[in-house]
Amino acid sequence: MDTYEEITVKRDTLFKGRIVSLHVDEVKLPNGKMSTREIVEHPGAVAIIAITDQDKMIMVEQYRKPLERSLVEIPAGKLEKGENPLTCAKRELGEETGYTCESMELLTSFYTSPGFSDELLHVYLAKGLKKESELHLDEDEFVDLLEVSYEEAQQFMKEQKILDAKTIYAVQYWQLARTMESKV
Amino acid sequence: MDTYEEITVKRDTLFKGRIVSLHVDEVKLPNGKMSTREIVEHPGAVAIIAITDQDKMIMVEQYRKPLERSLVEIPAGKLEKGENPLTCAKRELGEETGYTCESMELLTSFYTSPGFSDELLHVYLAKGLKKESELHLDEDEFVDLLEVSYEEAQQFMKEQKILDAKTIYAVQYWQLARTMESKV
Repeated sequence: MDTYEEITVKRDTLFKGRIVSLHVDEVKLPNGKMSTREIVEHPGAVAIIAITDQDKMIMVEQYRKPLERSLVEIPAGKLEKGENPLTCAKRELGEETGYTCESMELLTSFYTSPGFSDELLHVYLAKGLKKESELHLDEDEFVDLLEVSYEEAQQFMKEQKILDAKTIYAVQYWQLARTMESKV
Repeated sequence: MDTYEEITVKRDTLFKGRIVSLHVDEVKLPNGKMSTREIVEHPGAVAIIAITDQDKMIMVEQYRKPLERSLVEIPAGKLEKGENPLTCAKRELGEETGYTCESMELLTSFYTSPGFSDELLHVYLAKGLKKESELHLDEDEFVDLLEVSYEEAQQFMKEQKILDAKTIYAVQYWQLARTMESKV
């Protein structure tokens, strides 16, 4: 149902950056009135749920400038131009954690904030993890690697050290998987 | 652990809009090198998980200009300046769906995209729902109200009609609640 489609009358591109671009669209609404829409264009990203044989989820702690604080998150990274999400997920897992995996399964994809941004995040489940090497971070990337038990993850959520959509999804996924298992 | 703090040397504010503002910060990295951070400032938002006595989740279908398509989502809206999130959640539930509720419980809060935005989303669970009135939408807001069964929600996810973080969290929450119940 796209009957409420908003017709673009004019687009002003106010910024083209390394990561995001900003557009302000003048739109014609279904009732014929005009309005504006502020749109943040993003290349899209991947995130990886990786649980070791010791039942620890691999996470990274890093400083997030928009929040002026650090968060504990699952490994993630943005897509390079034209990059396949699966390729990106394997690359980011290696670069941020030093782990490789035997298989990666797409669990879900979601728009992080469809009201103002087109960022689409693909969440993969990595299986058959092997610690291969040291991290290979981008030169402006500083992260601490953590291996987090289920109980620690719950505690990090209480303490709001885990406080972002993809990681809260990942911990909820973990809880669901454990609940299913315990039913069997 | 904020040892990786990035010191702001200079902030350029390139845009101040109705919904978002855009800043480009020049930052000093932990290794002393300089970099830039593109930051989208957002007032924050709320979303409401509302399940009726008939075990249907209340959702809205609306056109999302950044995606140039419509999505099926749980009711949500952004915070007015200085607005309390709980007040906002009750207001948005009424405005977007015409329902009131006896109680609202904060389930979780999460940053939708901490890499480039400070948007914090608060997710509430509404209980004791009553259909009170017609919708009172903003004049540039056009939504269709849906009451979605669990099976329909799963189908909408397969069809990618449900494709945003808060709604996928909500359906996962529903799945977890049903799994827990069925265990008892």
